[in-house]
Amino acid sequence: MSGLDGDNYWRLGRLRPALPRVVAFGGGHGLFASLSALRRVTDNLTAIVTVADDGGSSGRLRAEFDCLPPGDLRMALAALCGDDESGRTWADVLQSRFGGHGPLAGHAIGNLLIAGLWQSLGDPVAGLDMVARLLGAKGRVLPMSAVPLEILAEVIGMDPLSPDEVSSIRGQAAVAKTQGEVRSVHLIPEDPPACREAVDSIDAADWIILGPGSWFTSVIPHLLVPGLAAAIHRTSARRLLALNLEPAGETAGFTAARHIELLAEHAPDLRLDVVLADEGFAANDPHLDSYAASMGAKLIVADLAARDGSPRHDVFRLASAYAEVLGI
Amino acid sequence: MSGLDGDNYWRLGRLRPALPRVVAFGGGHGLFASLSALRRVTDNLTAIVTVADDGGSSGRLRAEFDCLPPGDLRMALAALCGDDESGRTWADVLQSRFGGHGPLAGHAIGNLLIAGLWQSLGDPVAGLDMVARLLGAKGRVLPMSAVPLEILAEVIGMDPLSPDEVSSIRGQAAVAKTQGEVRSVHLIPEDPPACREAVDSIDAADWIILGPGSWFTSVIPHLLVPGLAAAIHRTSARRLLALNLEPAGETAGFTAARHIELLAEHAPDLRLDVVLADEGFAANDPHLDSYAASMGAKLIVADLAARDGSPRHDVFRLASAYAEVLGI
Repeated sequence: MSGLDGDNYWRLGRLRPALPRVVAFGGGHGLFASLSALRRVTDNLTAIVTVADDGGSSGRLRAEFDCLPPGDLRMALAALCGDDESGRTWADVLQSRFGGHGPLAGHAIGNLLIAGLWQSLGDPVAGLDMVARLLGAKGRVLPMSAVPLEILAEVIGMDPLSPDEVSSIRGQAAVAKTQGEVRSVHLIPEDPPACREAVDSIDAADWIILGPGSWFTSVIPHLLVPGLAAAIHRTSARRLLALNLEPAGETAGFTAARHIELLAEHAPDLRLDVVLADEGFAANDPHLDSYAASMGAKLIVADLAARDGSPRHDVFRLASAYAEVLGI
Repeated sequence: MSGLDGDNYWRLGRLRPALPRVVAFGGGHGLFASLSALRRVTDNLTAIVTVADDGGSSGRLRAEFDCLPPGDLRMALAALCGDDESGRTWADVLQSRFGGHGPLAGHAIGNLLIAGLWQSLGDPVAGLDMVARLLGAKGRVLPMSAVPLEILAEVIGMDPLSPDEVSSIRGQAAVAKTQGEVRSVHLIPEDPPACREAVDSIDAADWIILGPGSWFTSVIPHLLVPGLAAAIHRTSARRLLALNLEPAGETAGFTAARHIELLAEHAPDLRLDVVLADEGFAANDPHLDSYAASMGAKLIVADLAARDGSPRHDVFRLASAYAEVLGI
């Protein structure tokens, strides 16, 4: 388009403005839901994924090869698979797991392929980009850090006799399953290098989206990587926080407002433009509006829940809400 | 092109006759060499690959999942990878093996992907076709049978005190390594179903090519699958036998003529049109010409050896010989 000014560019047939550049943070099922919605809203999408998982197939690969845990990255890639038969078939294959009871049982096929690409290419981003091309993916998937991380949680309520005593729990799988109440999380190492391409995508974004997802293990960790936190702070992009549908797992019993407060406690500099909440979760929390405002955000409440009553987002309702917020 | 007769079709710009439809049989490194040459000679190429391997990564996968051994199929696919960076990179990745000493060590990445595709799709040919598309492969790779096979060999010379006593050795890996002299091989089961698509490709071929490769474990087994043997017998295709560069491994010390005789012993109805031999191997065998003639074949001798003196085919010399024989 060199030599054409804006007006001429439009006259030559571009029919609509470019869709916003969106960066979505998360891991696991929450990010899968968010990406499944966002792919219907924009054609310029980057996922930045936690790399602290130490359970299941990812944990076994990490223990065997000291590589990044591939599982959440694989799931994000599958969420972005091409709309054609090839894309959907490859996504199904990569998401499937070996059966039986042998040495391979339980490994996701995609985890093995990604780990193999990493060993062969020596470059996590290059390997993920190859899987993205294989899937015809509608976006890019990046690790939040170039090195595998561990999560260390401070937890209370582990001992019924001393309910206020603080214990440490190490490892994402253990934190996700704890019966205690998580108060805060840290990363090991404390100052991990951010993935360079992830930082670049935040710098270039129009919108960045935090959540939904497991609060302590999928949403907060990004804010603890100094290079990512700095990029999230300096970017000219607008910042949207998508709350979970209901408090569950690591934040069972927490109010919606407490979810926001936890973000602020872990990232005191964080400012938000929009907090998006399901009407069910928001209805029970009279303080939500003021907590959102304390972060600089406007609260938007919508019906986002699956129609069958299960505790998950309806992809099209979530897409509709994103489209409205993002002005598409 | 509907509505055009042959002449009009030619006038519309097709510059050369269609290249021959070639089917290459084999397994392992011999087939890899043959395919590496044939891909330079024709654009219509099908490989039909042995499925009796029970060693290494393939053997472990077979033991864990009772699937076809994927290794020789993977190697054939890699030999046919696309000429672009994507094809070559994927081929390198699929050929590479996990390192270390853990449960995955030694598994070829491509073997794991193929086994995963088979589990997910439930159709060996569909899985191989997906890998072929991934690689941008210059041809199709098919298993010779839809079920995994075992090789049973009759061997003499295992006991120095009774050198003529016949022993049975079961399993391809054991047969390939035996210190005895293999006299004959059988398949278990004895009457395995041929892969339907493999039979179709033989029926439609212009040329079928047997060898080079490990004689008892990669070349002869195809002739022991009744459905394949019948197709090889009835096809109107011409039949080329490519001898090894030198007697090694399972046929160490055997003359070139003895190699042909072994084929005839295992497949009495087999007729050949051409026997292609390296000039080094042929020079030491005054009977080779008459043994070839006994199968109905013309002997063609050429310099096929690698220029560095290593005991392997030079891909371009082999391609040149194929092109001459196939009249391209």
